[in-house]
Amino acid sequence: MANTRARPADAAGPRRANLALLLRTLQHHGPASRARLAVLAGLSKATVSQLVADLVARRLVRLGGAAAGGAGRPGQLVELRPAAVCGIGLDIAADHLGAVALDLTGAVVARRWLARDVPALAPDRALDELAAVAEATAAEVAGAGGWVAGLTVATPGLVDVDSGVVRLAATLRWREVAVADALAARTGVGLDRIAVDNDANLGALAEHARAGQSPDHRPAAPDRPETSTVDDLLYLSGGVGVGGGLVANGELVRGAFGFAGEVGHMSLDPMGPYCSCGRRGCWETQVGVRALVHAAAMPDDPIRDPLLGVEQRLEVIRSRVRAGDRRTVAALQQIGSALGAGVAILVNALNPAQVVLGGYFAALHDWLVEPVRIEMASRVLAPEAASTPVVAARFGFDAARRGGAYAALRRVVDDPTLAPVSAEQATEAPA
Amino acid sequence: MANTRARPADAAGPRRANLALLLRTLQHHGPASRARLAVLAGLSKATVSQLVADLVARRLVRLGGAAAGGAGRPGQLVELRPAAVCGIGLDIAADHLGAVALDLTGAVVARRWLARDVPALAPDRALDELAAVAEATAAEVAGAGGWVAGLTVATPGLVDVDSGVVRLAATLRWREVAVADALAARTGVGLDRIAVDNDANLGALAEHARAGQSPDHRPAAPDRPETSTVDDLLYLSGGVGVGGGLVANGELVRGAFGFAGEVGHMSLDPMGPYCSCGRRGCWETQVGVRALVHAAAMPDDPIRDPLLGVEQRLEVIRSRVRAGDRRTVAALQQIGSALGAGVAILVNALNPAQVVLGGYFAALHDWLVEPVRIEMASRVLAPEAASTPVVAARFGFDAARRGGAYAALRRVVDDPTLAPVSAEQATEAPA
Repeated sequence: MANTRARPADAAGPRRANLALLLRTLQHHGPASRARLAVLAGLSKATVSQLVADLVARRLVRLGGAAAGGAGRPGQLVELRPAAVCGIGLDIAADHLGAVALDLTGAVVARRWLARDVPALAPDRALDELAAVAEATAAEVAGAGGWVAGLTVATPGLVDVDSGVVRLAATLRWREVAVADALAARTGVGLDRIAVDNDANLGALAEHARAGQSPDHRPAAPDRPETSTVDDLLYLSGGVGVGGGLVANGELVRGAFGFAGEVGHMSLDPMGPYCSCGRRGCWETQVGVRALVHAAAMPDDPIRDPLLGVEQRLEVIRSRVRAGDRRTVAALQQIGSALGAGVAILVNALNPAQVVLGGYFAALHDWLVEPVRIEMASRVLAPEAASTPVVAARFGFDAARRGGAYAALRRVVDDPTLAPVSAEQATEAPA
Repeated sequence: MANTRARPADAAGPRRANLALLLRTLQHHGPASRARLAVLAGLSKATVSQLVADLVARRLVRLGGAAAGGAGRPGQLVELRPAAVCGIGLDIAADHLGAVALDLTGAVVARRWLARDVPALAPDRALDELAAVAEATAAEVAGAGGWVAGLTVATPGLVDVDSGVVRLAATLRWREVAVADALAARTGVGLDRIAVDNDANLGALAEHARAGQSPDHRPAAPDRPETSTVDDLLYLSGGVGVGGGLVANGELVRGAFGFAGEVGHMSLDPMGPYCSCGRRGCWETQVGVRALVHAAAMPDDPIRDPLLGVEQRLEVIRSRVRAGDRRTVAALQQIGSALGAGVAILVNALNPAQVVLGGYFAALHDWLVEPVRIEMASRVLAPEAASTPVVAARFGFDAARRGGAYAALRRVVDDPTLAPVSAEQATEAPA
């Protein structure tokens, strides 16, 4: 018997939903009086006053200065409480471990970054280090008076989100690594507050939250993708591997087993070079970092030095192309065309509102975007789709861990009653 | 300022939502007593009784025989009223005009099919004929005592769903044809009840509604995609052109301008043959009907005769392959491999729970599926995704118009108050 997912309208937890609505309204509109919140949220003033008291008790919001304008007595402004609740995004990549803690306003409360040769470490050892990074970051949040809503770990490759297991991450040389369990065992954070997800999915989440902000708006606030004004987005993360994060109808597309977005392994040239996955002609053999280095550098070129960090290699490439170095210019042209050929396939299939180039593609966006646009113009059927904007990821190499922090915060944004009621709230003066 | 789409929980129209919930419950579970409906829907018995009275007045349900089993007095069964409310799906293709009317139980109430050389007609003339088909179908629905919820027209190509305009349909030789306006002007049906959509999108909708039904269930009922148990589906429609309909997270993926699913124009071989769109190497040049005929038939072969209908040509091909004709076997192998190569790209990107082969692919599924599976197994990264089931569309060439009828019914399923209150309800005896 098919399971009807629909629920009766009166069983939806209206109080929880209304608390969530107020938080999202404050994220989008900034500080506001209770009267203004009532208008924005379509609730009565009495209801808003009760809900705000609850959010204050949970230290999610605070009462600030007087609201300006309007008739009658000025009301106090309700505002998100900085640093009070944080989500921590962690990431593991071939060359580093990283962490960022974001609060409800989108501000960075803590940040960690460690250069590590992760494939050379045993997974257990890497997870020891990741747990230490997580605990140091959580301690910093606690030191600032904050509560950690949860941890989300970004990794490359195939992730089983339900179990928190990395099934296969070729660039890490990981197979069947139970990341969530390992972190729960090594930290004081419960398994229900730990998640693991594909780095391109989380990058898409971060960039999608950003895409919903109008240009004149405050910095991107962590939020539900559903509130974005861009409902369909294709995020591509360029590294040794190439990953995709797809947003359709305002939601991340995970697919049946959570393995959507493996666009780096689209087979575009069966006679092409071998890929790390063992197949031939995968898209990432044409547009991954190795293809770039191969095209841009002679065998003795210093940018081939694997000890050089990716940022430094990219800086050398940028300075060469600025100086008009022919080999580098031709290499970026070649990579850009191959990137555009794959993007055109995905744009014909998905018609996103934006293509967001992340990872190293973002760092070289200025030179890649033109050949990408040319290929799209010649290969995409619908004229509007053929001119889909191709933008650089705002958060560059930071996008995946930032998306992880958003995902961790989202639990509390969706259900503010998860935040504990503070003992000190009754005695605390407004800021 | 970003527009927050979230609404307060108490403004969601609970009565309308609960009427819709009861209808969907009856669609999924079949006839039930009011007491059973209350349990299934999670509503009080008093509320259910009120709601059922409303649905009876709108002729959407009727009270039938006594419910079996349970303690106490048996209650009357509430059941969907056959033929009372119908959605009409129309389709325009290169070789025909068609229509089907479905009621809330999924039963066919009326059907029309006219062979026509549509590209040879002026669009105005074709729309005259389509309007006549729509009116004859609506008259049949009215004759059976039914009310027409709306009309949805399926066409190939790029459709602007908001305006009901076919932007470009190369196989019809249509460009900028205002189909919805034309039908409203030619029939008694208001513009608010007429929709136009891409045929592969509507085919995906029909097959998705079917995918949600367990095998032992009654025939597929028209329903919201959200109630399906298959949330991610890739539907491919094989014809002269090849279209895709994508369902992700239980919703049709339309993309930013509604042009998602143009998978027939994925450029897979830049040195390949020219496509009707003017580009080279589009997937449909490898797997469309013309590629099949080219591979399977010598120049003087009778199956090349364009006067032969597609069903007849397919029957000849099926009989030849059953007889072991080498050229036909090799042709299906070639088409299947090319189909699999493109499917593998989409499966890496989207990880659907099912790939549904529609149109002529469905008619030749038995011979195409093996080469498709072989290509998927060798080209898809995640092992679970590499073995994604590849099934024949249940509705074959009927899927698009059936999806159109579902779409038209969905307005009323989502908001049962759109159905008029009948004057005769008070005097009518239970069936």
